[in-house]
Amino acid sequence: MIQLSLIEARELAESILLHNGFNLAHAQAVAATVIAGERDGCASHGLYRVLGCVNSLRAGKVSATAEPQVIDQAPSIVRVDAGGGFSQLAFQAGLPLLAQKTRANGIAALAINHCVHFSALWVEIEQLTAEGLVALACNPSHAWVAPAGGRVPVFGTNPIAFGWPRGEQDPFVFDFATSAIARGDIELHRRAGKAIPEGWGVDAQGQPTTDANVVLDSGAMLTFGGHKGSALAAMVELIAGPLIGDLTSAESLAYDAGSKSSPYHGELIIALDPRRFLGDSTQEHLARAEALFQGIEGQGARLPSQRRYAARARSVVEGVQIPEALYNDLKALLT
Amino acid sequence: MIQLSLIEARELAESILLHNGFNLAHAQAVAATVIAGERDGCASHGLYRVLGCVNSLRAGKVSATAEPQVIDQAPSIVRVDAGGGFSQLAFQAGLPLLAQKTRANGIAALAINHCVHFSALWVEIEQLTAEGLVALACNPSHAWVAPAGGRVPVFGTNPIAFGWPRGEQDPFVFDFATSAIARGDIELHRRAGKAIPEGWGVDAQGQPTTDANVVLDSGAMLTFGGHKGSALAAMVELIAGPLIGDLTSAESLAYDAGSKSSPYHGELIIALDPRRFLGDSTQEHLARAEALFQGIEGQGARLPSQRRYAARARSVVEGVQIPEALYNDLKALLT
Repeated sequence: MIQLSLIEARELAESILLHNGFNLAHAQAVAATVIAGERDGCASHGLYRVLGCVNSLRAGKVSATAEPQVIDQAPSIVRVDAGGGFSQLAFQAGLPLLAQKTRANGIAALAINHCVHFSALWVEIEQLTAEGLVALACNPSHAWVAPAGGRVPVFGTNPIAFGWPRGEQDPFVFDFATSAIARGDIELHRRAGKAIPEGWGVDAQGQPTTDANVVLDSGAMLTFGGHKGSALAAMVELIAGPLIGDLTSAESLAYDAGSKSSPYHGELIIALDPRRFLGDSTQEHLARAEALFQGIEGQGARLPSQRRYAARARSVVEGVQIPEALYNDLKALLT
Repeated sequence: MIQLSLIEARELAESILLHNGFNLAHAQAVAATVIAGERDGCASHGLYRVLGCVNSLRAGKVSATAEPQVIDQAPSIVRVDAGGGFSQLAFQAGLPLLAQKTRANGIAALAINHCVHFSALWVEIEQLTAEGLVALACNPSHAWVAPAGGRVPVFGTNPIAFGWPRGEQDPFVFDFATSAIARGDIELHRRAGKAIPEGWGVDAQGQPTTDANVVLDSGAMLTFGGHKGSALAAMVELIAGPLIGDLTSAESLAYDAGSKSSPYHGELIIALDPRRFLGDSTQEHLARAEALFQGIEGQGARLPSQRRYAARARSVVEGVQIPEALYNDLKALLT
């Protein structure tokens, strides 16, 4: 393993992205996201993703210099046209107006269009909870997941993320795929020649299967939670697809045309301001939310994201470790 | 079975509610909801609920005459103080201002406070899709459900409902509890002396159990979908509880103090106007949503609510049938 301080890790990511053609704004925004993932122990969303960013650029599937265009769409709607760039800079560009509209009106939405997307949503959610706002975000991906009772993929892994501010404490944040499992986990089972558990996927006839090859090549992944998870996946398609004038997961996969790049689509973020709902009694009611959290933790159950926050506390002090092979692959992108 | 036309069924419900002390506005609003349930084949949310409404009134747990107070809380927030009455009249009172704010601003929220709640959320969702709006609604209930990894109930059955307008067609609507199963289903198993499936509940030590008595008396129900469903249940507690200054499920159960009345709490509804997101291209993008629905139905999978809509089509022509024992219990409330 190679040991890196968080500053070293960020400089490595930024320098690779710059060297390969991303402008400074995109390189900094993308590097901040992958370092947040690496820092929080999410290696699958960490420095490893820099390889994919460069691949997407070389495949012509992402703009290295797109300037996000912020559009004041309606009193409570911000739109940002990412212009085919990665989502990070578009989110940054839209955040101030989203926060302003949310504080002014109580609830507001940010629709990001035409972005290339690979990051976890909690990175964005935490930027809203840091502003004292409640936030909900979701996006489609590539159509890999069948609806409940079906066999043909129409949904993406369609994550839903939510955040609740907790003052000086780490926010309450969850961020999960509406698929039963990440596609990467099924790919790991295939490489290892291992059977997958029931409930992860079906074959081309819609029958349960434990064969990773069948799920990935001719069948479909399943949603979590049966028809309820399937309903949520459909909701994500609708509100982060047609509602904001952007691609569904099926359309995103068609656009990809086999290049195996990151999905190209939109994203919807909804923010709510507790102070506009609660006025002078805001603190009293936020304290009642703390009682709920104590009711969960007090019985030994975990709040979502606790493992991530523990990793963060360690990484800030100790830095991060990445496999030497990954380090060498990254370094090779600097030559 | 007793056969009733929809008009007869509505007159029966209204006359019972009026005879037992509800004013005309509440009687009409509640009757409309229970008839919608009966019409759509949801007997558990149908005429049967009139018995519970009268019981709640006799137990002093609901106001028969409360006037909902509509408060223009913020440019995109409507609040309605239900004053301890049933939720239906409060929703009706807030709907016009919610629709107006949503059309003006693109997204808006309706927070209903201090309402007694027993109805399915799809009844309200359909009133928003009928206005051409996208809608999301949720509420806590009584604390019966343990968090993932826990054993002590802190969540209610916490339903989430969503609707998407489809022009002249029935809207895309789902409405599900975030608990693995309705509490009533576990009670039915107890009465029948039948074991419940694994995954519905745990005992007082948090261990899986198939004993309905244990789950209902000393253990806890579980959420659907493991830690993901548990995260969603927590979100519902937060955004339809402290965010709107109303009770969590634990607080609602404490307020009930063993009377077994309907939960008393708040409800959050979020509405979004596709026309404000999409402008002149609204129809084009709504047509892309139809392609998603065809992708689901075309492979033989069902859209949520299809069974309900089929029952509705029958009931409108043929009326409804209710068990004679229920009919007699209802008639007894008129004397």
